Amino acid sequence: MVDFLMNIELHQNSTYQQQIREKLVELIEQDTFGDKPLPSGRKMAELLGVSRNTVVLVYESMVDEGYLVARERCGFFVHSDLLMVQRISNSVQTTTKDAPRPSHQPNWSKRLQKQPSQLSTLNKDENWLNYPYPFIYGQIDVNDFPLYQWRECSRIAESKGKLHEWVEGFIDMDDPQLVAQIRQQILSKRGISAKTDEVLITLGTQNSLFLLTSLLADKSVTFGVENPGYANLRHVIALCDSPLKALDIDHQGVQVGEQLKDCDYVCVTPSHQYPTTVTMTIERRKALLEQASKDDFIVIEDDYESEVNFIEKPLPALKSFDQDGRVIYTGSLSKSLTPGIRIGYLVADSSLITELRKLRALHYRHPPSNNQRITALFLSQGYYDSHVRRMRQSYEKKWLLMQQGIERYLGDCEIHSTAGSFCFWIGLPEAISSHLLVDSAAAHGILVESGDSLFMQKDAPENYIRLGFSAINSDKIIPGLAILGGLINELRPVT
Amino acid sequence: MVDFLMNIELHQNSTYQQQIREKLVELIEQDTFGDKPLPSGRKMAELLGVSRNTVVLVYESMVDEGYLVARERCGFFVHSDLLMVQRISNSVQTTTKDAPRPSHQPNWSKRLQKQPSQLSTLNKDENWLNYPYPFIYGQIDVNDFPLYQWRECSRIAESKGKLHEWVEGFIDMDDPQLVAQIRQQILSKRGISAKTDEVLITLGTQNSLFLLTSLLADKSVTFGVENPGYANLRHVIALCDSPLKALDIDHQGVQVGEQLKDCDYVCVTPSHQYPTTVTMTIERRKALLEQASKDDFIVIEDDYESEVNFIEKPLPALKSFDQDGRVIYTGSLSKSLTPGIRIGYLVADSSLITELRKLRALHYRHPPSNNQRITALFLSQGYYDSHVRRMRQSYEKKWLLMQQGIERYLGDCEIHSTAGSFCFWIGLPEAISSHLLVDSAAAHGILVESGDSLFMQKDAPENYIRLGFSAINSDKIIPGLAILGGLINELRPVT
Repeated sequence: MVDFLMNIELHQNSTYQQQIREKLVELIEQDTFGDKPLPSGRKMAELLGVSRNTVVLVYESMVDEGYLVARERCGFFVHSDLLMVQRISNSVQTTTKDAPRPSHQPNWSKRLQKQPSQLSTLNKDENWLNYPYPFIYGQIDVNDFPLYQWRECSRIAESKGKLHEWVEGFIDMDDPQLVAQIRQQILSKRGISAKTDEVLITLGTQNSLFLLTSLLADKSVTFGVENPGYANLRHVIALCDSPLKALDIDHQGVQVGEQLKDCDYVCVTPSHQYPTTVTMTIERRKALLEQASKDDFIVIEDDYESEVNFIEKPLPALKSFDQDGRVIYTGSLSKSLTPGIRIGYLVADSSLITELRKLRALHYRHPPSNNQRITALFLSQGYYDSHVRRMRQSYEKKWLLMQQGIERYLGDCEIHSTAGSFCFWIGLPEAISSHLLVDSAAAHGILVESGDSLFMQKDAPENYIRLGFSAINSDKIIPGLAILGGLINELRPVT
Repeated sequence: MVDFLMNIELHQNSTYQQQIREKLVELIEQDTFGDKPLPSGRKMAELLGVSRNTVVLVYESMVDEGYLVARERCGFFVHSDLLMVQRISNSVQTTTKDAPRPSHQPNWSKRLQKQPSQLSTLNKDENWLNYPYPFIYGQIDVNDFPLYQWRECSRIAESKGKLHEWVEGFIDMDDPQLVAQIRQQILSKRGISAKTDEVLITLGTQNSLFLLTSLLADKSVTFGVENPGYANLRHVIALCDSPLKALDIDHQGVQVGEQLKDCDYVCVTPSHQYPTTVTMTIERRKALLEQASKDDFIVIEDDYESEVNFIEKPLPALKSFDQDGRVIYTGSLSKSLTPGIRIGYLVADSSLITELRKLRALHYRHPPSNNQRITALFLSQGYYDSHVRRMRQSYEKKWLLMQQGIERYLGDCEIHSTAGSFCFWIGLPEAISSHLLVDSAAAHGILVESGDSLFMQKDAPENYIRLGFSAINSDKIIPGLAILGGLINELRPVT
């Protein structure tokens, strides 16, 4: 029986030792061996077609770990402690297999105070990797990840002498080295000089926005948000029952004046407006801050895609012009490095950071300390900076290809031409529905995003799409756009 | 000038290359070199007292990374791209150094909807490592961390072929391998058989509780909480304005009957009641679930310290007895492995998990994907299980020492003797204030926690302390308790 169970197909994706060990752990958990010996090293080696030595090394490491015991001339056995645990858990599982009593079950739908699953948002296809032409936004090309450098920093953080700096957790604090590096290497380049107690590490911009609204929003507090804009920002504000005000934007960014007057908070994406990619001009930035002081509102700056400018030098952050302490600043490494590690940062008045830190401790304590430390090392060795510069060059090529392809194949669409972004915001000819296009594109292996969920109004224009290019391979850009152009033509009403 | 700036003291905590590189990055960020060459390899080697080769390797890696350029016969220079960036950011910083305009600054205190900094909670001293006798709870001894095994899993997760499995982020999903391993290796041992869609990965139990209250709490919903109990649970419930009901506990755990009748949710810690360490008996567990169905309330089980039982076999989780789907289960690796990586898990009805997953996406997307993958590998290789068994043995020794010491030196205190926990809950003779003891103990290098903030009532008993032993070295236990006993005697009123 064991022969059959151990009949695993060894593959090349991980070491044989690792695969054999994983399988043995699984079989032991299922109490397969009982108090019988495991197959001998020789037998197991034959079964699996590996060297006897490979099997023996696994067995011996599992003796060291207390999984197995070696009995002289009898072979390897499962440690008796483990057998006992298995039997307890098996007996428990048996006793609980009684029939369910449906009439006693709770009514969950009545108990939900919110239904976040019903919120409309950009539908991210988890299987985007399966599309040959993923014009998806917010994901990265895994080949761009600076693997060697990250691994080196991870190795340093996991060395014996450094362990105590993160293994114990930070209670409600952050890694001081990460805060120092973010101030020195990221914020300073955005023109922001922040003190240590004005910075909080978060789990990315979404988390920064959630922490801020948790602390500041309430049903009596109005938030102005860009329209179209980031749907998940509207959703976190709505969680706090705060009224939302849709703000109009033009080619300079959010419009100042009358529309901001009754806002308590104005949320903006000055580097590249989400999703239109418009960059807020210097004049507009100054006018916005002037009005913030005059009408006593706070500006929340999501410094989104700040590193991405392929034509001009990036403008300094809005926060760098902030003389009255009216700008709360958020940024993250999700677009520039990877969304997987979930590292963001928030800059605000120290009194606010103190409260946010305590609130964060109630939410989840702190962003994982090992990732904070690895990221700090990654910044301190200059790897982040090199990576961002390398990416900017590589994205510039993609961006130029996108421009060419869009001009050639999507020529009669409304195109927002800007100095850079990881995406293009495209208005289809009005008679064409973005949903129809998204569906027909998907059928041709092309992933594009419909823009209507980014508008606040119920009767949102249905002819906008977003084309991201951070994840797609550059070879696929022109062919993908060519197919997309053809599909748009097919959808054009016959005249 | 550069000679002076490069005059760093090289230490043995990290490699020379790493230290030199970090310093050079810092100097380049500060625009120290301008368009002048860096000191030659030979000169730098002399300055720092290292081999020329060490310096050259750093220079060459920085050329590869685009930090430096090598000009033949002229030496190494800062890349011109970098100089430009520096100058922009310097010019920005200068322009923003205008005088602040205090009259235009916002009034933050008026804007705070909450003041989490004012919540009373156990004061965790960040500097607990500086105390010779840290009887602190919730931290671990860094030497117990299974470094070698964690590093191996981290190395596997960071191999080229595995990278795409976490670098792109999970949007709102979890690592399926981690979910599978938690079901198979952790939940099954607690007697819980949960389907994949009934499990959510969180950032630890605090985060699980926060997600749950965010979804389920409201001012019309009453939460019953153990008294004394976990203060940060009360605080997250209070964030949602839900009424709290203090529940009495006895030697079998929380009392069933009248006091639970008007609760919508009853939050319990059955394995070891927090903080008294009482284990809920089987009879009480069954009675609690019986009443939950009868009076239509939900039980939230924090399966806290489930692995820690030094005398008997641990009881299966309350959730394993749950026939009506009325138990929401939470657990974490914070106590058993490390609080640093922030990995917890939540088991509930799949309809609830769906909503919690969407809510989590609004809060912070997902727990970092690299940590999820490393933890999955760590479980799959059986390292977690071995670690927990090893820890149980090591803690058992400490626990016995604690018992001995407490009996010998704190003999006339009220002591809750249980079958295991990482701490002891001690009632001092009534005339002695725990705060006075905490202060005088701290002055003698002993860190103990006063228990009064764990009670709900305003007139909480002031004579309870908690003595944790997970972080203290076993050699320090008896001497520490001896000193503590002496200090208690000193505080005793003269009769």
